[in-house]
Amino acid sequence: MSSTIRVGIAGYGNLGRGVQQAIKQNPDMELVAVFTRRDPEELAKVTGVPTARLSDAADYIDQIDVMILCGGSATDLPEQTPELVKLFNTVDSFDTHAKIPEFYEKVNAAALEGGKVGVISTGWDPGLFSMNRLLMQAVLPEGVDYTFWGTGVSQGHSDAIRRVPGVKAGVQYTVPVQEVIERIRSGETPSLTTREKHRRDCFVVAEEGADQEAIRSTIVNMPDYFADYDTTVTFISEAELAAEHSGMPHGGFVIRSAVTGSGSKQIAEFGLKLDSNPEFTASVLIAYARAAIRLSREGASGAKSVFDIPLGYLSPKSGEELRRALL
Amino acid sequence: MSSTIRVGIAGYGNLGRGVQQAIKQNPDMELVAVFTRRDPEELAKVTGVPTARLSDAADYIDQIDVMILCGGSATDLPEQTPELVKLFNTVDSFDTHAKIPEFYEKVNAAALEGGKVGVISTGWDPGLFSMNRLLMQAVLPEGVDYTFWGTGVSQGHSDAIRRVPGVKAGVQYTVPVQEVIERIRSGETPSLTTREKHRRDCFVVAEEGADQEAIRSTIVNMPDYFADYDTTVTFISEAELAAEHSGMPHGGFVIRSAVTGSGSKQIAEFGLKLDSNPEFTASVLIAYARAAIRLSREGASGAKSVFDIPLGYLSPKSGEELRRALL
Repeated sequence: MSSTIRVGIAGYGNLGRGVQQAIKQNPDMELVAVFTRRDPEELAKVTGVPTARLSDAADYIDQIDVMILCGGSATDLPEQTPELVKLFNTVDSFDTHAKIPEFYEKVNAAALEGGKVGVISTGWDPGLFSMNRLLMQAVLPEGVDYTFWGTGVSQGHSDAIRRVPGVKAGVQYTVPVQEVIERIRSGETPSLTTREKHRRDCFVVAEEGADQEAIRSTIVNMPDYFADYDTTVTFISEAELAAEHSGMPHGGFVIRSAVTGSGSKQIAEFGLKLDSNPEFTASVLIAYARAAIRLSREGASGAKSVFDIPLGYLSPKSGEELRRALL
Repeated sequence: MSSTIRVGIAGYGNLGRGVQQAIKQNPDMELVAVFTRRDPEELAKVTGVPTARLSDAADYIDQIDVMILCGGSATDLPEQTPELVKLFNTVDSFDTHAKIPEFYEKVNAAALEGGKVGVISTGWDPGLFSMNRLLMQAVLPEGVDYTFWGTGVSQGHSDAIRRVPGVKAGVQYTVPVQEVIERIRSGETPSLTTREKHRRDCFVVAEEGADQEAIRSTIVNMPDYFADYDTTVTFISEAELAAEHSGMPHGGFVIRSAVTGSGSKQIAEFGLKLDSNPEFTASVLIAYARAAIRLSREGASGAKSVFDIPLGYLSPKSGEELRRALL
C-alpha cells in the first residue's frame, strides 16, 4: 500500500469506539475524524480526535479515503450509507438479513453515481459466517449446514426483558445447545426446531417488591422472543449485573456436514469465540476498509459484499508476500 | 452460468477419481475426457469415459473449458501446469509450500502467454486453510495462529515406514495433540515445539520372523520423519490393515487467538474432519474450476491463487441469489 489510509468514523457508539481502537492496531490506517449527530464539541472530549457534525461530512471529501459507518441497521444505515457513498468510499455492517437485497440496490445506485465503492454488510454475520456458508456450499454441494450463535448477548432480547413490568435491568444470553453441536460434529444431520438449537438465559434485576414469578412467566411466554425457546430467568442484584454481565461477548459456529464420492462424510466448521462483539465487528470493518480503498484505487465503483472481494485485498501485505508466507 | 462447463482431468489417481465423482455432484459441470500417461485404452475400461494420451491434450483445445490437473507436486505439476496452461484454463493442487512462489511465476508466465487462467495450489492446505490464515490475520492483526493437521494419513510418512527393513506394509496417522488445542481454545497462546503439537501413530505389518523391537526402534528414531515426535508403533495383521486402515481420512484446524481494544480475547477457528482427503481436495478443485472459467470469460489471464478470487466465483449461483440466500 503506497500511503496511509485516511479513515472517517460515522457514529460513535460501541462499534465506532471499536473502530477507533482497531485503527491503532493497523499501522497502514489513520483516523482523521469522527462524525456525529450529537454535539461535536462535547463528543470531542470523549473521542480525543477531530469531531464534526455528520451533516458537515461533505467538507471532508479531500481528507478521507474511506468512511466507516457505525450506525444501526434499523434506521441509521438505510439512510446514511446511500447518502455518504455518493461522497466517500464506505464500509458498513448492515445486518438486517431480509433487507440486504434492497439495501444493496440502493447503495449500488448511489455508489455508481458517486464513482465510489460501498462495501455493505460486513462483520461476522452477515460477514465471515456468510463467507463460510458460501464457501462450504460451493465446495460441498450435497450437505446440510447449520448456523449457531452464542454464547452471547442479544441486544434485542435484552431490550425485550427490560420492557417487562417490574424489571429494572437485565441481560439476555443466546446459548447454542452444545449436545446438538456435538451430534452434528460426529456426523449426524438432524432436522432441528428453534428450541433444539438455542437456549435463552436471562439475568434480571427486579424492582423492589416486584412479583418475580409474574416477571418470569411474562418473559418465558413472550411470543417471538422467548416462547419458542427453553428460557431460564435468574434474578440477580444490580451489583452482580454490573460486575458479571457488562461485557459484550458473542460468537457462534457455521457447520456443514456433507457427503462426497460414494458416501464419504466431510465436515467443515468455522467458529468464533469473542470477548467483545463490537470490537470484533470493528476489526472486520477495518479489513474491508482496506479492500474498499484498494478496489477504488483500481477504478472500481458500486456496492460490494464480502462475496465480491478477493481475500488478498483484506491484507496490507503484497500478493507476493502472501503467497510466500500464508499460502 | 450460461452453459455447462466442460472439464478435462489430467492424471487418474485418487485425486483424479475424486474429481470424476465430484463432477457428478455439480450439474453445471460435464466431464469430457481423462488424460493419462498410461495406456489410454486400458485405462478407459476403468474411467468409463473418453480417455486419451496426455501428450495428445492439444487436440482437445476446442472441447475443454478447464483442465483439472491431478498429478503429484514433486514431479508432475511443476512440468504439467506450465505446459497445459498455455492451452487450457487449469486448476491444480500444487502443495509444496516452499516452492509456491517459484511455481506461481512459471505458471503465470505460461498462462499470460496462452491467454489462459491457471488457478494454482487449491485444496485445503494450501487452499482453505491458507484462506483462513489470511482472513484471520487481516481481521485480527495482534495475535498468534496455529495450524494443526489430522487425524489423518500422511503418505510421505507411510512410505517412510514401508522402507524400514522387516516391514511388509504400514500406515501412519498424524494426530493433533487434543490437550494443546483445548488450551488454545480456552485462550492460552503457548509456544509449542513440534513434539507438543502432533503425535505420530504407526500401524505396521511385520514380515514373518522380523524383529519387531528393531523395527519399532528404527521408526521412532528416524530423523526428520519421527525422531522429533512422540511416535507409537502398533503391530497388526495384514487383514486388520486392510479392514481398518484403507481409508484416507484427514483434516485439521487453523486457530487464531488474538486481542482487540484493551485486551479483549478474540478466537477464530476453522476446522475440517474428512473421511476422504482426496475426495475433499477434488471438491475444492471443482469449485475453483468454476471460478477459473468465470475469470477467463471475463477476460482475465495469468496465475491466480485462492487469495485472488472472490468467493462468489466459486458458486453456481448468481450474485443476487447469493446475497439473498447466504449473506
